Amino acid sequence: MKRKIYLNMHSRREAQDIFLGRFHDYLTDEEEIPSEAARDRITSRPVIARLSAPSFHSAAMDGLAVRAEDTFGAADDAPLTLDISSGQAVMINTGHPLPEDKNAVIMIENVLLSDDQTRGTIRAPVYPWQHVRKVGEDIVATELLFPSRHKITAPDMGALLTAGCAKVWVHKKPRVTVIPTGSELIKLDDSLLTPPPGKTIESNAAVLAGLAEQAGAEVKVHPIIVDDFNSIKKHLLAAVDSDADFIILNAGSSAGSADYTVRVIEELGEVLVHGVTIMPGKPTILGIINGKPVMGNPGYPVSAIISFEQFARPLLALMQGMEMEQPPQLTAVLAVDIPSRGGIEEFRRMITGKIDDHFVTVPLKKGAGAITTLTRANTILKIDAASEGESRGSRVQVELLRPQATIAKTILCTGSHDLCLDLLHDFLKRSTPAYPLASTHVGSLGGIMAIRNKMTHMAGSHLLDAATGEYNISYINRYLPDQDISLITLVHRQQGFMVQKGNPKKIASVRDLLRDDICFINRQAGSGTRVLLDYELQKNGLDDDEIHGYDHEEYTHMAVAVAVLSGKADAGLGILAAARALDLDFVPLTEERYDLIIPTRFLGLPMIRQLMEIINTRDFKKAVELMGGYSTRETGTTRMIA
Amino acid sequence: MKRKIYLNMHSRREAQDIFLGRFHDYLTDEEEIPSEAARDRITSRPVIARLSAPSFHSAAMDGLAVRAEDTFGAADDAPLTLDISSGQAVMINTGHPLPEDKNAVIMIENVLLSDDQTRGTIRAPVYPWQHVRKVGEDIVATELLFPSRHKITAPDMGALLTAGCAKVWVHKKPRVTVIPTGSELIKLDDSLLTPPPGKTIESNAAVLAGLAEQAGAEVKVHPIIVDDFNSIKKHLLAAVDSDADFIILNAGSSAGSADYTVRVIEELGEVLVHGVTIMPGKPTILGIINGKPVMGNPGYPVSAIISFEQFARPLLALMQGMEMEQPPQLTAVLAVDIPSRGGIEEFRRMITGKIDDHFVTVPLKKGAGAITTLTRANTILKIDAASEGESRGSRVQVELLRPQATIAKTILCTGSHDLCLDLLHDFLKRSTPAYPLASTHVGSLGGIMAIRNKMTHMAGSHLLDAATGEYNISYINRYLPDQDISLITLVHRQQGFMVQKGNPKKIASVRDLLRDDICFINRQAGSGTRVLLDYELQKNGLDDDEIHGYDHEEYTHMAVAVAVLSGKADAGLGILAAARALDLDFVPLTEERYDLIIPTRFLGLPMIRQLMEIINTRDFKKAVELMGGYSTRETGTTRMIA
Repeated sequence: MKRKIYLNMHSRREAQDIFLGRFHDYLTDEEEIPSEAARDRITSRPVIARLSAPSFHSAAMDGLAVRAEDTFGAADDAPLTLDISSGQAVMINTGHPLPEDKNAVIMIENVLLSDDQTRGTIRAPVYPWQHVRKVGEDIVATELLFPSRHKITAPDMGALLTAGCAKVWVHKKPRVTVIPTGSELIKLDDSLLTPPPGKTIESNAAVLAGLAEQAGAEVKVHPIIVDDFNSIKKHLLAAVDSDADFIILNAGSSAGSADYTVRVIEELGEVLVHGVTIMPGKPTILGIINGKPVMGNPGYPVSAIISFEQFARPLLALMQGMEMEQPPQLTAVLAVDIPSRGGIEEFRRMITGKIDDHFVTVPLKKGAGAITTLTRANTILKIDAASEGESRGSRVQVELLRPQATIAKTILCTGSHDLCLDLLHDFLKRSTPAYPLASTHVGSLGGIMAIRNKMTHMAGSHLLDAATGEYNISYINRYLPDQDISLITLVHRQQGFMVQKGNPKKIASVRDLLRDDICFINRQAGSGTRVLLDYELQKNGLDDDEIHGYDHEEYTHMAVAVAVLSGKADAGLGILAAARALDLDFVPLTEERYDLIIPTRFLGLPMIRQLMEIINTRDFKKAVELMGGYSTRETGTTRMIA
Repeated sequence: MKRKIYLNMHSRREAQDIFLGRFHDYLTDEEEIPSEAARDRITSRPVIARLSAPSFHSAAMDGLAVRAEDTFGAADDAPLTLDISSGQAVMINTGHPLPEDKNAVIMIENVLLSDDQTRGTIRAPVYPWQHVRKVGEDIVATELLFPSRHKITAPDMGALLTAGCAKVWVHKKPRVTVIPTGSELIKLDDSLLTPPPGKTIESNAAVLAGLAEQAGAEVKVHPIIVDDFNSIKKHLLAAVDSDADFIILNAGSSAGSADYTVRVIEELGEVLVHGVTIMPGKPTILGIINGKPVMGNPGYPVSAIISFEQFARPLLALMQGMEMEQPPQLTAVLAVDIPSRGGIEEFRRMITGKIDDHFVTVPLKKGAGAITTLTRANTILKIDAASEGESRGSRVQVELLRPQATIAKTILCTGSHDLCLDLLHDFLKRSTPAYPLASTHVGSLGGIMAIRNKMTHMAGSHLLDAATGEYNISYINRYLPDQDISLITLVHRQQGFMVQKGNPKKIASVRDLLRDDICFINRQAGSGTRVLLDYELQKNGLDDDEIHGYDHEEYTHMAVAVAVLSGKADAGLGILAAARALDLDFVPLTEERYDLIIPTRFLGLPMIRQLMEIINTRDFKKAVELMGGYSTRETGTTRMIA
């Protein structure tokens, strides 16, 4: 172990310039492929039409083919009869070739045919070439169909074939080899119950392969190699000597791997960049060996992806003669303060939705190790290295990870979490139209504040008013005096102590928490569960100072359950469903009401109407009851609070 | 031949409701596939995490693993030394498992190690679980990873593997069979010099297959079948009896094919819709046979694509449990009037670009038979059935066929066409950054009007002032008095008569055009070439009334060349390059200057700067000279006209 030293630290832009600049003419070779297989490929030469289309004059309408000159003089008061039997006029179908001696088509609707169809009478002339598709009207042989470096779409394939181009010259797909390294890595298989301590399931290689394929590459994934200088060197050299165009080493999350990677690249070639002032993604290594680009991609999943997007994706575009498309952006109002360290560019994963007439964006937690911070996000906020962060209410640009239309119909939900929200999400996705539900967990009071600040559509809340024994209403009256609020009961649920399997410490009531041999895990202040605990303590005249672990807070039921499961604590207050999920025992304490707080002005939104409809279905209630620890006896009940 | 009768005509929306409504629960079966192969597939069930991640407490930093309690009391004025040799503190690397008896990590940067590394001194305490990645911090076993009907991205594959889900349940890819029908269709092969008269190269099947694959389907393309009731019936029945989920018959462009298709579907099953009030795409047939959806897709290439997009793409989405994503839109100012027939919804193919601070959109020509009207377009304008069109200057919503960033950097070029513009387009696409050049052809004067109306970045122009013998300047002074204009010479080029190979009619000068045996093909009024012809006629005291075909106009050099090649005319005025392209003979008449007219305010735009740079390169000039009939002696010369 040593302090991490970056050999050659740069800002993102500098690093991109150095790396992409070094490979600015590193185009893949060209190859000629069938046009029918050319979708999404990039032309390597201008494409010139070989044939004209149409290749013959044809009727653009069903009707009579005629010489326009023969129709001159026809008028309403001077009908003119054309002879079909002699061939003066010829019946013709759309698309059929125009007879040599004809130069116009009269629409059949404008012809009065004789009963025996040997004559046709018209009441207006046609001009030459009327209703005729002329040779070359679409494509003229020798014309430029597509310039170089054009990405071929499905319709483009039609133009290629129509223009007689059965084959087309395109850039070869770049060949990428992804090498996962790290002694701690194991491959997932079905039989794996839980990874042995210290071992991590290898997951980045598949992600990087998927991203590279999406960027147009052909990818080979190498088996996992251990953290060993000589082993890394041997495999990297073999990859450089293969037909690979670009090699990505994905270091494990341990420091060792990354260090070997940089030393190996240094020995075999040149390290161009080591360390980039971005977060996540700082330990990125960019190098060159025998003229080929090599990347040492950081091991934390989010770092690996962000580093790929900054350096590998633009390189792969460049190798195919393309340019990176800038991701679409939108302007959103920041829901909370986001402080940021100066000197480092941050990529924050965000949840964005539309509140009233503007977009609102909420950060997910930061951890580069948590892949779900990326899979749950629908947008990215880049915070400049020069910035010390952004403050709540400021307007920021976020990059879209999903289509804007999807973001615009995302239901923002914050406050207290309940597993029924996940169920609701699944029901919403399965309904037509489907709406995403994006929830963040900030506790009941945090949710009410988000409503107050107009930063969410709804908040989950179970705040007990100790004075009245009623839930939520007094808090709404206190904190949301200026908004019309609808309070919708989602469920009643059991709260109790989650304890280790078999309840080895024999915890039976709230009094037991004060025992010396009990270590408790608490929920954060402002959460409904915390309010409930404090209420129960007060009711029983107990002092929270005497509880070991009272100050140790977690933010979700599941986090509390995990703390108990891992032995970090003996008990925590939470819901039955969380205990069941991790196979913990559960000591019921009380039942509480869990409501959705929704500003009344949102009830007319299609997505909220859909949600309300789902909550009231028998299917949804049945699914809730199946989870255990819930009652749906008042589910869907709405109280209006003006 | 008969008048086309639609059995069951509907508006687009009605037709969608009827067709998609009939198949609203026509989901593909589900299958369990490896998560590593699940990119872009749609979940058929909620995905539940099987394992927690991380699965062990680990160091989030390099440093010393300790019990937090052992560090309490450490301060700047009270340094505290931890014993490494006894195991009180343990050296640990990022990602490595935390020893059982430890609960925090001190960053190595905050530790003063003894020389023999047996002791570490700290000057601040750590709190419990500081710099520790806890079990389940990312994913808790049993939590909802993804709801049903979620499209799996590359990062999502990482979450699946990390959560121990080696496999995932997804909807099967819908199986689509595309059957091209039409006796006029032939398959393109390399040896085809030109299609026999009346024959058309089959190109729609590959396009429809490409579109369906893009929509997530697996596609089988059937060999072409002839227009014969029994043959269509036999092959369609076989397809319905196969494992195909959805069959698309692509009628040829002749009326017969479509009629057989509707009759066959009527006989084998039910015709749900025949005829949709959209243009292109009117002859669409939607039906059902043995519970399977069947589509009769119109034969014209643009009709086939637009009909697919309206009915097949949403069906394929629905079959996978997805919803159609609405294409992104932008607001643009319409550059010209677009009249439209009431009662029919039009899909106009548009070129859109950014002029000053707003987007401008220009229609391409209408023909549903011209695939290039779609491949050249970057946007689509839908004109409602209730509308009689849109007028110049009105703000319209266009749907994007390319990313907005690409559209925003598209150079709009209009006016007179010259082949050097295609060359310029290729050079622009090959430069870094690449800029698309989108040109429309409205003649020199039309281009000047577009500049006047602020609807284009530049106009190609070669308008001769008969009085001065100078090009373009007097027209600019007359029509663009309010704008600062830069006039950039692109090339000098030869204009002359394009005549049939071997010049059978012995055309030698402008006088010959008046001969009785000569049929001329003219350019449209307002084009530079027309101005040039009129100047030559006037100079020689000749009367245009005496020229056969003087009133017959085409809009491009190539269209004139095609008219001569096809025998429609004996001669037309145009450029050498066009004559060469179609292997015509060329009788030089004069040399003229072809300029680019660019408002001076655009010269600072990156895309225009790039264009100016390219024009002045030796490579570009060499490529121009190689085409023949051009001189680059003044290429790049700029005149400022205030």
